[in-house]
Amino acid sequence: MALIVQKFGGTSVKDADRIRNVADIVTKKYQEGNDVVVVVSAQGDTTDDFIAKAAELNPHPSAREMDVLLSAGEQISMSLLAMTIENMGFPAVSLTGWQAGIKTDLNYSSARIRKIDPERVRSLLDRRKIVIVAGFQGISPHNSITTLGRGGSDTTAVALAAALHADLCQIYTDVDGVYTADPRVVKNAVKLDEITYDEMLELATLGAQVLHNRSVEMAKRYNVDLEVISSLTRNPGTKVKEAVSVEKMIINGVACDKHVTRIAVMGIKDEPGMAFKLFGLLAKENISVDIIIQSIGRGDQKDISFTVAEDLGEKTVELLKANQKTLGFQDISMQSGLAKLSIVGAGMASNAGVAAKLFDALASCMINVRMISTSEIKISVIINGDEADRAVKAVHAKFFD
Amino acid sequence: MALIVQKFGGTSVKDADRIRNVADIVTKKYQEGNDVVVVVSAQGDTTDDFIAKAAELNPHPSAREMDVLLSAGEQISMSLLAMTIENMGFPAVSLTGWQAGIKTDLNYSSARIRKIDPERVRSLLDRRKIVIVAGFQGISPHNSITTLGRGGSDTTAVALAAALHADLCQIYTDVDGVYTADPRVVKNAVKLDEITYDEMLELATLGAQVLHNRSVEMAKRYNVDLEVISSLTRNPGTKVKEAVSVEKMIINGVACDKHVTRIAVMGIKDEPGMAFKLFGLLAKENISVDIIIQSIGRGDQKDISFTVAEDLGEKTVELLKANQKTLGFQDISMQSGLAKLSIVGAGMASNAGVAAKLFDALASCMINVRMISTSEIKISVIINGDEADRAVKAVHAKFFD
Repeated sequence: MALIVQKFGGTSVKDADRIRNVADIVTKKYQEGNDVVVVVSAQGDTTDDFIAKAAELNPHPSAREMDVLLSAGEQISMSLLAMTIENMGFPAVSLTGWQAGIKTDLNYSSARIRKIDPERVRSLLDRRKIVIVAGFQGISPHNSITTLGRGGSDTTAVALAAALHADLCQIYTDVDGVYTADPRVVKNAVKLDEITYDEMLELATLGAQVLHNRSVEMAKRYNVDLEVISSLTRNPGTKVKEAVSVEKMIINGVACDKHVTRIAVMGIKDEPGMAFKLFGLLAKENISVDIIIQSIGRGDQKDISFTVAEDLGEKTVELLKANQKTLGFQDISMQSGLAKLSIVGAGMASNAGVAAKLFDALASCMINVRMISTSEIKISVIINGDEADRAVKAVHAKFFD
Repeated sequence: MALIVQKFGGTSVKDADRIRNVADIVTKKYQEGNDVVVVVSAQGDTTDDFIAKAAELNPHPSAREMDVLLSAGEQISMSLLAMTIENMGFPAVSLTGWQAGIKTDLNYSSARIRKIDPERVRSLLDRRKIVIVAGFQGISPHNSITTLGRGGSDTTAVALAAALHADLCQIYTDVDGVYTADPRVVKNAVKLDEITYDEMLELATLGAQVLHNRSVEMAKRYNVDLEVISSLTRNPGTKVKEAVSVEKMIINGVACDKHVTRIAVMGIKDEPGMAFKLFGLLAKENISVDIIIQSIGRGDQKDISFTVAEDLGEKTVELLKANQKTLGFQDISMQSGLAKLSIVGAGMASNAGVAAKLFDALASCMINVRMISTSEIKISVIINGDEADRAVKAVHAKFFD
């Protein structure tokens, strides 16, 4: 008998059939004698519908009211799931974020969970109820409704699992685990049975959209055993944990993020603190910078290139242009339509020749590498977006075939 | 400068245009310097959509989960209205039932408001916010979401007005006030400028669907000045208050409820306590009985006839049949498709001849009266449903033309 937290995303509860499928998974685990907490997202297109409704009335609604609106989405899906479970003859109780004790900070639309008061959930579990909790939402110190931003329901699930000292947190998705590459691109991609938090983190950050990195970070911090698993196939998924038991492969996966923009700032004065000034400015506007390359100074000038997410490209350029005087650069350029291909694996650090193998694979299919970035367990390269799929296939073949 | 509570029903916020119209009404009052609290229902068909979604998954969902689901409806409409008001440049904050301090009892789907903690609403008003509160919902002593049942948003508005000692509670609807008869039936029905709580209560109970009787009862108890007013025409509505200042008409209105079923229980033993037993049984099942007529005993037996709402007819008959032994009656019959026509007016008590005038009007168009019930300020008759419109016209003409 274990305590299991199961999270189901919007696609998994999008219509009556899928909700019945979820109820089936949940009650099976419950019937085996486990205590089960279920975290649900809003149904399929609900969030998009809400956003469209809001946009019609206010092009720039306040984040506070947007959170009130969006959080109604999980309230709908959680009650529908509870009713479905009741209809199968099992006891279910649904709780909103505040009812489940999910306390966040004040940041509407991208709040962070500060703490969870799990008493109510626990007392319901003690009475053998299946507890269904609204994902993605919480309550601010001023008792206003907040939402957690992208990947929020994963975070809710992991945070609840941590607060309840759950034995396992299962993240149900439409894929049946973590693969060595996107199986839609690479036909013979292999599903991993296990992966470490750090490797999963790199993959999450690198555009393998299986788990949001905030939830993986939290799982690592509180040592929550995760499982990424399909709500459709009933096959075992991929376990994410601190250390994995299988003999390590050198690399665990090939990930690709196709929405990368490179910005080059040219002719910056080569003075101490200029890079700090530039990136400090971006940080203040919440612009997250990924790969940074700084050219060797020519005379008293240098160039700095960096990548940002595609949808932040223009905002970044405008911001820098507005501060051209302070930063004292000569020119700025932006290139969109790039992709970042990464290979990830804990075995990489201790294994010479991985980088060589990667560049060999890219070179053999004539793919030009524009930027390179490396860490202990990952190598990333920036390439043209339209060559991304071909590159992923070639790299995967090189390492896994 | 006054404190005004304004309530808008589902039709008044059914789409973007109507929401903008409501925002217009609200901000006008605010701009005049008033403090404004707005109570909203769920948008037009939201509730029906939710009920259909639930029915697909569970034909008999628990009332608790149904309340969780339905209460999402007001959360959607209140945030959309808040955004619209923000877009016009005014400060608005939306609050769910629990956030607004609306504490109810434990009766899911038909909860009663026990008390309101108005601190949060008041502190927002003090900061000159327009406060938008979800109607129809509250929070139980165990912190579960409850809904107030039919007419619940009216009740929320009146209860808030009472708790905040508001100067006026405006109930916006699609009609522009209380009429002497249903204007869809009687062409020359007259709008009343004022009416007393008691008269309004009789009209509400009698099927004039302008205000729910629970809200009128509450307004009477706490002496809240009400106004029934149209959200479309901008004309003054009908004021509902303790005493009205205009010279009294003898009768204030002709109301008609077309969903009446009569149940006749025949051959009950003529013993003390039998009627108590019968109606006690119905009360326990929340079956509300309206007009009761008891025949003079024949020997040791008597007959009891009473009316119930049409949708409770079969349930009532089944219940009584199941208890036939205990109640000791011989036969039971049910007749649906009846209507109750009522005339209401505080002047009636002191004015002889009102009843005679009513029966004259009915007799002159050959309408058969099946049951009669009278009170200080009302006379009701049960007639055939298909004769109801004709009867209303005739009675209205007799008293108002």
